[in-house]
Amino acid sequence: MTIAAQMLSLAAEARQAGRILANLSSAVKNDLLLRMAAALEAAGPTLVEANEKDLAAARQSGLSPAMIDRLVLDDQRICAMAAGLREVAALPDPVGEVTSMRRRPNGIQVGRVRIPLGVIGIVYESRPNVTADAAGLCLKSGNAVVLRGGSEAIHSNTAIGAILKGELKNLGLPPAAVQVVATTDRQAVLELLKCEESIDLIIPRGGEGLIRFVAENSRIPVIKHYKGVCHTFVDADADFDMAEKICINAKVQRPGVCNAMETLLIHKDIAETFVPRIAQAMRAKGVELRGCPITRSFAPDVKVATEEDWGAEYLDLILAVRVVEDLGEAVAHIDRYGSLHTEVIVTRDYHNSQRFLREVNSSVVMVNASSRFSDGNQFGLGAEIGISTTKLHSFGPMGLEDLTTRKFIVLGDGQIRA
Amino acid sequence: MTIAAQMLSLAAEARQAGRILANLSSAVKNDLLLRMAAALEAAGPTLVEANEKDLAAARQSGLSPAMIDRLVLDDQRICAMAAGLREVAALPDPVGEVTSMRRRPNGIQVGRVRIPLGVIGIVYESRPNVTADAAGLCLKSGNAVVLRGGSEAIHSNTAIGAILKGELKNLGLPPAAVQVVATTDRQAVLELLKCEESIDLIIPRGGEGLIRFVAENSRIPVIKHYKGVCHTFVDADADFDMAEKICINAKVQRPGVCNAMETLLIHKDIAETFVPRIAQAMRAKGVELRGCPITRSFAPDVKVATEEDWGAEYLDLILAVRVVEDLGEAVAHIDRYGSLHTEVIVTRDYHNSQRFLREVNSSVVMVNASSRFSDGNQFGLGAEIGISTTKLHSFGPMGLEDLTTRKFIVLGDGQIRA
Repeated sequence: MTIAAQMLSLAAEARQAGRILANLSSAVKNDLLLRMAAALEAAGPTLVEANEKDLAAARQSGLSPAMIDRLVLDDQRICAMAAGLREVAALPDPVGEVTSMRRRPNGIQVGRVRIPLGVIGIVYESRPNVTADAAGLCLKSGNAVVLRGGSEAIHSNTAIGAILKGELKNLGLPPAAVQVVATTDRQAVLELLKCEESIDLIIPRGGEGLIRFVAENSRIPVIKHYKGVCHTFVDADADFDMAEKICINAKVQRPGVCNAMETLLIHKDIAETFVPRIAQAMRAKGVELRGCPITRSFAPDVKVATEEDWGAEYLDLILAVRVVEDLGEAVAHIDRYGSLHTEVIVTRDYHNSQRFLREVNSSVVMVNASSRFSDGNQFGLGAEIGISTTKLHSFGPMGLEDLTTRKFIVLGDGQIRA
Repeated sequence: MTIAAQMLSLAAEARQAGRILANLSSAVKNDLLLRMAAALEAAGPTLVEANEKDLAAARQSGLSPAMIDRLVLDDQRICAMAAGLREVAALPDPVGEVTSMRRRPNGIQVGRVRIPLGVIGIVYESRPNVTADAAGLCLKSGNAVVLRGGSEAIHSNTAIGAILKGELKNLGLPPAAVQVVATTDRQAVLELLKCEESIDLIIPRGGEGLIRFVAENSRIPVIKHYKGVCHTFVDADADFDMAEKICINAKVQRPGVCNAMETLLIHKDIAETFVPRIAQAMRAKGVELRGCPITRSFAPDVKVATEEDWGAEYLDLILAVRVVEDLGEAVAHIDRYGSLHTEVIVTRDYHNSQRFLREVNSSVVMVNASSRFSDGNQFGLGAEIGISTTKLHSFGPMGLEDLTTRKFIVLGDGQIRA
């Protein structure tokens, strides 16, 4: 069988399984997830053994220590996967929610009901825990899932997949509800991305290269974010203590993630006092600053920011700093260089807070809080399946609800159209 | 300038204009639409004159009378366009609605606010009224719009566009909020579909050929429906009077539209009585029936249905009829041959009504009502921008709300992440 035929058939099986998943009760889905959690824990030694094969291959092929660390499956990480599934089991089921129901003048009642999307394809790299995490979210929302992890984690992912499939089978459910692509041939991804008859949505998780590859080659809708270039704007009448606390947290609490601050914008009226203060505070935390000329006039040891610094996602202890004329220029800067991820204003001014909330286009806009809160879990969505910085379907952190859509239902008493 | 460069620049101008549109108050947007309505009425002779050029070319090129009829702009149709804009002005503005706002344990308030998508591209055929109708819906929802009508209507569309742009200008708003593609070169569509940096959503309106062309060539998300193969299932204990009334209405009230019934499914337990009855009633309305063997055993003059009849969108006084074993077989038939548009059950059985609502996958599922109600206006969404039979973003008839998305807003008091 060619890889194209394999992928078509695997996706078609998932489509069939999805039809059954869509009509399961919450109780059955929760039971399934809890059994999967227990089965993963019980299978610890098997999983570690499979993971050893991946690790050996990774060491041999000279993967970086950071990549190898991400690849490791040990008891702690297996427990974390199981805990993740239990957490998802405890979340409310979005499927079946009637989000509106209104009576029309002719007496028909028109409502909208949440239903699963059908089949979700996840294309990801390295971390084998995504296999269980993503499967849990898709199953809970009544969807089948096709998982395509990185070739470096193939043995781990296949072993996790086998455990999950086993529990589907034990409950008399179709194992094809969780499909793990077993070939490491990159052609498989391309072929999956053509299965628009069977897969409803593709979510790529990984580096910008992977995401661009998926977006450019998919015939199926893709929900994605390329990067997070998050801004904090310190307004003229910000509380300096609060501003410093928020900026430090946004930059240093976990610099390697997409909701960390990458550019700090400072209102010109406070530059003389706030620039030296924040420069010193950042320096004390080991952050390298790169600033505009006005920034450097108040903090001469700050490096020169080039055009590339605006728009850079450092994912590191580096921060671009720019002094702006006013809120309008801050918004324009964000509009030009931002990534539609998360932007923050620190201000005590009511009017400016409202204007920032209204005019900034990004998927998350905050007043007086750290950009590090931009996360499905922190927002109360439960576990996060991804984040979208494109506006169709979902915008911002995505939870279970984003794996559903709504159909219309109409309840009549024999009405016909005049 | 190449066509590619023209389209890029026109889309980029729309993007800029969209930024201004997004922040207009409802009052300004409504004023704009009312002025546009008045201006279209006032420009009647100019529009008719432009339309004459299209009509002359259409007659010369031998367009069918039906196509020419669709192309005509007369006083009545101009008034209808104006009335459409006034209707949209009267609809509630979806932009700015806070759809949720919750306080998290750490005190931050997390909410979601409706915002415009940005720039909508409409690719359509024939009817010049779409130019004003679609522009009205896009502007009301705070979006800029790029309109690409058929080459046969180029003079009409350009003339309508000029009126709309004039009113934008009169209010000091960017005329690029309504972009009418002035070239008839088909290459222009292809180039537009590549402008993913500036256009957020493409909605094709027209025949299946146009829609497939757009879907296959677009880098921008497309919301579409190819066809409407709507089913009515008459259950074993249906009220026969109601069933007949609903079936006749669904088939003959307006057979040429996508929410007309194309296939009738009948429970085997009532086939002996209901098949002859509905066959006679349909025949009296001039409907040609094509049936399965059991149907024909009870109504011998019914033609033989072939495999192509299941799944056919006749858009005509033709109806496929099949007798099914039970509700499960009806659902399976719909699943196999349906188009995810609209399906109806006629029943007095509570359990079956619930099961049909739950198990049928289509964007609209009805109990005891005619499929002809499947329409944004009938559902109370106001004017309809289109209908989606794919599940991402929107599923079913689409109104103003479907031209928006939601961003997250976070209101804090200096919270940072631990």
